[in-house]
Amino acid sequence: MFYNRSMTHPKWHLPPDRYFDPDPTQRRIARELYESVADLPIVSPHGHVDPRLFADENATFGTPAELLIIPDHYVFRLLYSQGIPLESLGIPRRDGGLVEQDHRQIWQVFADNSHLFRGTPSGAWLAHELHVVFGVEEKLTGATAQMVYDQLEAKLATPEFRPRALFERFNIEVLCTTDAATDPLLHHQAIRDSGWSGDIRPTFRPDAVVNLLTPGWRDNIVALSEVSGVTVHSYPTFIQALEQRRAFFKSMGATATDHAAVSAYTAELSPEEADAIFQRALRGEATPDDARRFTAHTIMESARMSIEDGLVMQFHVGSVRNYDRLTFDRFGPDMGCDIPIQAEFTRNLRPLLNKYGNDPRLTLIVFTLDESTYARELAPLAGHYPALKLGPPWWFHDSVNGMMRYFQQVMETAGLYNTVGFNDDTRAFPSIPARHDLWRRVSANWLAGLVVRGIVDVDDACEMIQDTAYRLVKRAYKFNE
Amino acid sequence: MFYNRSMTHPKWHLPPDRYFDPDPTQRRIARELYESVADLPIVSPHGHVDPRLFADENATFGTPAELLIIPDHYVFRLLYSQGIPLESLGIPRRDGGLVEQDHRQIWQVFADNSHLFRGTPSGAWLAHELHVVFGVEEKLTGATAQMVYDQLEAKLATPEFRPRALFERFNIEVLCTTDAATDPLLHHQAIRDSGWSGDIRPTFRPDAVVNLLTPGWRDNIVALSEVSGVTVHSYPTFIQALEQRRAFFKSMGATATDHAAVSAYTAELSPEEADAIFQRALRGEATPDDARRFTAHTIMESARMSIEDGLVMQFHVGSVRNYDRLTFDRFGPDMGCDIPIQAEFTRNLRPLLNKYGNDPRLTLIVFTLDESTYARELAPLAGHYPALKLGPPWWFHDSVNGMMRYFQQVMETAGLYNTVGFNDDTRAFPSIPARHDLWRRVSANWLAGLVVRGIVDVDDACEMIQDTAYRLVKRAYKFNE
Amino acid sequence: MFYNRSMTHPKWHLPPDRYFDPDPTQRRIARELYESVADLPIVSPHGHVDPRLFADENATFGTPAELLIIPDHYVFRLLYSQGIPLESLGIPRRDGGLVEQDHRQIWQVFADNSHLFRGTPSGAWLAHELHVVFGVEEKLTGATAQMVYDQLEAKLATPEFRPRALFERFNIEVLCTTDAATDPLLHHQAIRDSGWSGDIRPTFRPDAVVNLLTPGWRDNIVALSEVSGVTVHSYPTFIQALEQRRAFFKSMGATATDHAAVSAYTAELSPEEADAIFQRALRGEATPDDARRFTAHTIMESARMSIEDGLVMQFHVGSVRNYDRLTFDRFGPDMGCDIPIQAEFTRNLRPLLNKYGNDPRLTLIVFTLDESTYARELAPLAGHYPALKLGPPWWFHDSVNGMMRYFQQVMETAGLYNTVGFNDDTRAFPSIPARHDLWRRVSANWLAGLVVRGIVDVDDACEMIQDTAYRLVKRAYKFNE
Repeated sequence: MFYNRSMTHPKWHLPPDRYFDPDPTQRRIARELYESVADLPIVSPHGHVDPRLFADENATFGTPAELLIIPDHYVFRLLYSQGIPLESLGIPRRDGGLVEQDHRQIWQVFADNSHLFRGTPSGAWLAHELHVVFGVEEKLTGATAQMVYDQLEAKLATPEFRPRALFERFNIEVLCTTDAATDPLLHHQAIRDSGWSGDIRPTFRPDAVVNLLTPGWRDNIVALSEVSGVTVHSYPTFIQALEQRRAFFKSMGATATDHAAVSAYTAELSPEEADAIFQRALRGEATPDDARRFTAHTIMESARMSIEDGLVMQFHVGSVRNYDRLTFDRFGPDMGCDIPIQAEFTRNLRPLLNKYGNDPRLTLIVFTLDESTYARELAPLAGHYPALKLGPPWWFHDSVNGMMRYFQQVMETAGLYNTVGFNDDTRAFPSIPARHDLWRRVSANWLAGLVVRGIVDVDDACEMIQDTAYRLVKRAYKFNE
Repeated sequence: MFYNRSMTHPKWHLPPDRYFDPDPTQRRIARELYESVADLPIVSPHGHVDPRLFADENATFGTPAELLIIPDHYVFRLLYSQGIPLESLGIPRRDGGLVEQDHRQIWQVFADNSHLFRGTPSGAWLAHELHVVFGVEEKLTGATAQMVYDQLEAKLATPEFRPRALFERFNIEVLCTTDAATDPLLHHQAIRDSGWSGDIRPTFRPDAVVNLLTPGWRDNIVALSEVSGVTVHSYPTFIQALEQRRAFFKSMGATATDHAAVSAYTAELSPEEADAIFQRALRGEATPDDARRFTAHTIMESARMSIEDGLVMQFHVGSVRNYDRLTFDRFGPDMGCDIPIQAEFTRNLRPLLNKYGNDPRLTLIVFTLDESTYARELAPLAGHYPALKLGPPWWFHDSVNGMMRYFQQVMETAGLYNTVGFNDDTRAFPSIPARHDLWRRVSANWLAGLVVRGIVDVDDACEMIQDTAYRLVKRAYKFNE
Repeated sequence: MFYNRSMTHPKWHLPPDRYFDPDPTQRRIARELYESVADLPIVSPHGHVDPRLFADENATFGTPAELLIIPDHYVFRLLYSQGIPLESLGIPRRDGGLVEQDHRQIWQVFADNSHLFRGTPSGAWLAHELHVVFGVEEKLTGATAQMVYDQLEAKLATPEFRPRALFERFNIEVLCTTDAATDPLLHHQAIRDSGWSGDIRPTFRPDAVVNLLTPGWRDNIVALSEVSGVTVHSYPTFIQALEQRRAFFKSMGATATDHAAVSAYTAELSPEEADAIFQRALRGEATPDDARRFTAHTIMESARMSIEDGLVMQFHVGSVRNYDRLTFDRFGPDMGCDIPIQAEFTRNLRPLLNKYGNDPRLTLIVFTLDESTYARELAPLAGHYPALKLGPPWWFHDSVNGMMRYFQQVMETAGLYNTVGFNDDTRAFPSIPARHDLWRRVSANWLAGLVVRGIVDVDDACEMIQDTAYRLVKRAYKFNE
């Protein structure tokens, strides 16, 4: 293939007032609010960055395709939706089948289809990464693809673009990873042992041992026994092992746990029923209803443990994982084919909230993919229960419009102070500053909209932007303590 | 405790163009439209103000805390959600347990936490009450709390701030209360007997005798027998008693009834089944399904009665009452912990609409807390059935954004003329002008938005603002007749 | 009745910048984008215009009432909702009962109530039809009604206002009708035989033979046998007959099929079960559950056939047809009383998408009336599956706000390139240019909003407006081929 390197292309840069409303008064206020927080440190309390990137000070990000395309299902799903095979993008197959190895060719396909990202959050983040993080001055198109690749490749070869260097340049105050209950946290230990000052903390995510239908669940229980030192043969020993792991995660800096479920269903089982289900699961005989009830019960148990050990509890509700059988069979999980469903919180959370929701020692942060629950259920619940807080717009809703809908539908009823600032929730490390910058800009624009409409005054807006950008997340996740 | 009274604080006032879009052209048109209705009388067809306030010409509102905090669950729920005990806000406990008695201290806690109300409708109403109704010139903060308290206390001691005086100053043309089917309406009678000219009308709300699961239902039936003079021992006598009460309410000025249910389910039972359920209920043996079907049937019966006696029928759907057991047990009902659920109207209302919906003698006004039903179900239904009208945005949606969503999602399909203007639905009497003013401003801004987008012309907008602010509500609730 | 013809009335015209935001910068960009596509040909891939209008070159539209009121349930539903009997609007009764015959009187009633259309899409389309298509210079009111009627009547009598002449003046490149599987397409054949150059194509809609509960289903099966030449006595012969008809429609220019269902439920039956249900249906013994499962299965079969014959598959989900029994009994179907219900796609489409969704030979275009599924389900699905595309906002949502919600809730996640431009879906032929013009204006305004917010640059916006206005629809419906 011929890669055109000789053409000259016009300079392109990100508009400095991006994401602000066009009205000059609102825009001026938005800009001033944004500027007051633009340089604050980034607090990233929930995400999926691989801690190995920071365990070895010489780790690198690889090629531009390895940095921006191959690991990012937000990106390759849009190419796939237009009929471009995942193999041609270098996505590894489970069966080891052949996939594209020429990363320049992968990059070219991506750039040839860059129009697919017009108006999408991935498009916005990529623009920020290329132009702000990497200093590229051309717009990415099929024609500029190889020229841009050259620049990225050269930068990635320098020490300034290694993970730890970018962590520092990005001004990240704390970054939390998400880790299985059975994870020995060796990379986190290596980071600590290395003497590097970056604050990277694990988060305790027990889904793979709590969800009885997880493939390999029994192996996970064996691993849980081994890593915890508690022989798990019953529901009480299962809980003991979880408590041991929580204590260990806490000793490694964790301030939070994370739980995912298809529905928000909570229910309390008797100890006998919990153990009977657990025994059936050990025998490989658990039914889908067993799994549903066991998860519902364990979510309540997790709230109880959080009251006792102080770990903040995150609850992500409403995604059908591995929806597309063909893609899952061929490429595995986390490949962009998890699809949301309707969620229900009012009835489903009632058992948990009735038991623990009035206890201010609990912080339960709920995330939804069903925006119809924002104003109808979650904001009224968060506006009453001391324990309940709303997480920021999640996943598909981590976008300009997603944020605006969140502000408009949540804030009047819940109040800003029952929300927790921003999560980037990303596995794409170089997109972190782009995502936080977008949140800060859209927050500033929302607040400027309140100021020009006489709903809050400028003094209040100045406090509120500090809260959305920095203070609320630190307080909710207990990073101040 | 030391209350600082000596500091000086900057003057603060409500922005005159509040709630209008910032675009200068839209803002100018919005202002002109607003000004054309700003001084129209207030028509309040649905709310929960206590008629006792007006039965005695010397009644007062008590302390500032008794006026603005203790009776207003919109206010104290936000303080509670941040971990402030309701006892510290003076909310009376059912068990007579000790609660804060120092109203200055309650006020101080409230003011110390006034940031919680930033951007909320309660914050907007409170600002209007303090600055417009009471003439306070300082922003309420922890520092100004006692100074503001002093001013409110002084005003509340004057005759100009008694309920009847404020009613007149607020320019209220008619105010409807909400009253149990068993209520003898003694306060309404006292108002009439007093010769005072204020037009205060009851509304017939039979929920406590219709919902078989209401605590104390059988006592309510006994009371219904007594007050109606009809011995209620069967379904037919139950209906007779309801008809007697409706006639009585009508004789006392009522033009409407009000019905609340968790779902919009309607269904017609045979007379035998209705009576069988009623007999089970009298024996204390009604099941939840009995109650559900009985309510569904009685809603249809109420439509039949409305066609006969001309009372407008209001139907409020979708709130789970007394959701939080702890708060309910300790403080009782209406404490800010009623939480919405998903609603369904298309299938649920079909029996009622098929039987009565084409009859123009019926006016059925539906209210929802599930905004996803606005454009999907309610606007198409109201855009077809002569009997069906949509109530204004309710409760959590009685807010700037709630109104905008309502205008945007309802009006294109239902048309303005299948809506009924505004309800304030409040138990907080001094918030009434704030709420109507907010509706008029947001309506004016919506209409100005249509004008600047060339969707309606200025002549039409001038008519439409009169309709939203005054004419539609009078027509729908038959106050013209 | 006296019709005032002598008054003079002020000139009235459509604002040239209608539907654009008021901000001067956004408005200027919106206008430029709009102007770049305003004169492009109209591509109308889905609608309900009667092909008879074009089969005879001398066909006319009749009176103004026959043109604009009597056949348009969008219009008369709003009059009916305010208590105006359909009989007084000339809507024919099934029983042949008397209805208003004086079309000037019908027009007067309509004009007297023109305020009902303020802010509605019908109001916008009517304004465009009167002022742009017919050159009327007065605003339609009760006072101008007869004067406007005179003008319309005079124009309709001229050759320039016959259907074929308007088709050419409207610059329609292709117009698709919707036709039953059993339709012999005689009018389409007559159009072809006439030598007229207008490109009018049929669309294959098999609902009346697929939905076992359709009134007259068995007669439809007899008709299917006759028209296809395949004796339909079993499920396999049913499928053969459908395949014959699809081939015939394709030979007549069809590029698409259309399927409607109350829910999006898909499921694969065994051949034995499919035939057993079919046999029960032939015996008149099919149950509602049989019908539901048979439709679910046939939708999957239709996807298989589309992969084989290349016909684009449209799927319209979520309307309860003939909701109002009284109106249906008296006036028949399609009378404005079809009401939407909640929709669910994630679980319902999974069987179909797992089997066929990864096959780029399939184009499945989904339409919803439940906007809560836009961001939650449809955009994520379309952003992954190569076969899936989203249809434009449908029916009640074919409006300024409906389009804005669609753009805001769909585009960030699905990307523009998984949508298919615009459908007018109308039976009101003269409203076609109004509807496409509105789409182009609102699209231009949406894109201008992205430009002023720095989300896309002007170059991209110039491409995107061509895509939304013209290119995407041609590509999706294979009109290029």
